Amino acid sequence: MTDNIKMIEEKLFSYLPEKELLEKSLIDSMKYSLKAGGKRVRPNLALEFCKLCNKPAEKAVPFGCAIEMIHTYSLIHDDLPCMDDDDLRRGKPSNHKIFGEDIALLAGDALQSLAFEVLSCEDTIRLTSAQACIKAVNTLSKYCGAVGMVGGQVIDLENEEKKAPIEVLQIMDIKKTGGLIKAACEMGCIAAEADEEKINAAGIYGEYIGIAFQIVDDILDVTSSSGELGKPVGSDINNKKSTYVSLLGIDKCIELVNELTDKAINALSVFEGDTKPLKDFAVKLANRRN
Amino acid sequence: MTDNIKMIEEKLFSYLPEKELLEKSLIDSMKYSLKAGGKRVRPNLALEFCKLCNKPAEKAVPFGCAIEMIHTYSLIHDDLPCMDDDDLRRGKPSNHKIFGEDIALLAGDALQSLAFEVLSCEDTIRLTSAQACIKAVNTLSKYCGAVGMVGGQVIDLENEEKKAPIEVLQIMDIKKTGGLIKAACEMGCIAAEADEEKINAAGIYGEYIGIAFQIVDDILDVTSSSGELGKPVGSDINNKKSTYVSLLGIDKCIELVNELTDKAINALSVFEGDTKPLKDFAVKLANRRN
Repeated sequence: MTDNIKMIEEKLFSYLPEKELLEKSLIDSMKYSLKAGGKRVRPNLALEFCKLCNKPAEKAVPFGCAIEMIHTYSLIHDDLPCMDDDDLRRGKPSNHKIFGEDIALLAGDALQSLAFEVLSCEDTIRLTSAQACIKAVNTLSKYCGAVGMVGGQVIDLENEEKKAPIEVLQIMDIKKTGGLIKAACEMGCIAAEADEEKINAAGIYGEYIGIAFQIVDDILDVTSSSGELGKPVGSDINNKKSTYVSLLGIDKCIELVNELTDKAINALSVFEGDTKPLKDFAVKLANRRN
Repeated sequence: MTDNIKMIEEKLFSYLPEKELLEKSLIDSMKYSLKAGGKRVRPNLALEFCKLCNKPAEKAVPFGCAIEMIHTYSLIHDDLPCMDDDDLRRGKPSNHKIFGEDIALLAGDALQSLAFEVLSCEDTIRLTSAQACIKAVNTLSKYCGAVGMVGGQVIDLENEEKKAPIEVLQIMDIKKTGGLIKAACEMGCIAAEADEEKINAAGIYGEYIGIAFQIVDDILDVTSSSGELGKPVGSDINNKKSTYVSLLGIDKCIELVNELTDKAINALSVFEGDTKPLKDFAVKLANRRN
């Protein structure tokens, strides 16, 4: 999977416009957050599903880059003072602390546009097909918009001071975190021009590991040290927010993560290729320490 | 052209997700700004260019709606406190004054996603083709992103307190205002599956009327009354910003608008259809009072 991340990172920055004199700060700001990177979970999934459909991972690289751009824009906007007002992101100053709120807002906006530009440019069409590209645009736009990631953010905001029940927490996470992970899995199959059955199965895998991912986040928020996590620990609990841990307790959470991981792995049964890397990945996400 | 606007507005709101209980405020916020509407200049242009290429206007309706969504998101973000901090938009409270900064930010984000969802959904593909749709995605994403509209915003921000020279003002306006108008003209031809020569000519028309549009804005900012304009007059001059009027004076500005309008009309010569509606439209934009 290190190969996947290398392929993604080699390509990711090449899509940024050449530094134009007048908009230098914008491009710097976009690059800053793309570089701050992370585990590249989403593009990695896109590449793995493409390989599982017996196509070279290269085919899914532009799709993976587009997903990472959407993920990055969402983090920049999430950290803004009118949202979570976070000064730190992965142990580094958040985008607006360096570039100012106005440029950070616009860098997020431009990263969203760039994602769709990448999905629709001539190179990407040549690598896959116009049909695959337009399907990828539709998948990504749906899962990142009002009924997907952004909708999940709104549910999060509106339940900040409330003790939201587990059902609300789950809908929120399926949209907010699960949406983009699901999109990544489906888009890997779309890049490989796989059939609907495979695309749907990939989506189910994505949805389950997406919820598991969020529950692990909640667990780490109370069990990890600030150094491991790259952000202050206990921030959710200080916020009086409902979390899986506050609603279910740690033991039940760990059990739930294992259950969801099993369900995700079961969804892979429709694929004929080697499912081991994606099984291992689901287990690794469940057991991560940061 | 009233027919065009009717067709757009009938379709525009149908793309909004059904009000989901948990995200009601988001959908309300998106709808509020889409409704606040305006002259629907951009979608109208898309429909007119489609007709000029001898295809029914209906073919360009989804493209027109997508462009209006991008335009609307840019206005919501533009009015935010960290940007222009405007309390009024077209004589009504701006989005964040009603829904709060967080929801306004997210409504803008979701409108951008929705634009690309509209361009890539099955209904739109059936109405045109996968090739036309992916080309529309590429055109819109390019003109609204870092080297287009958002880039123009950044140039605007960075020259707020400076006396920017006319060259900077022009680059800014070609990107900030001209970009989306140009996209609209090109996308009308793309919906009609016209050839590159026609798409380029439409883009040239769009670029010229786009700059003219901005110069007229600057003229109206000093000559119009607040009631006519729906926003405080003289706001640009109070901001110490360079404007075409402050750099060139009103007489020279009027001359320039007429010159640009002539150039735009000349670009229409490659089309065989009836160019009168687009000629009239360019003249009407040049002579508008609000």
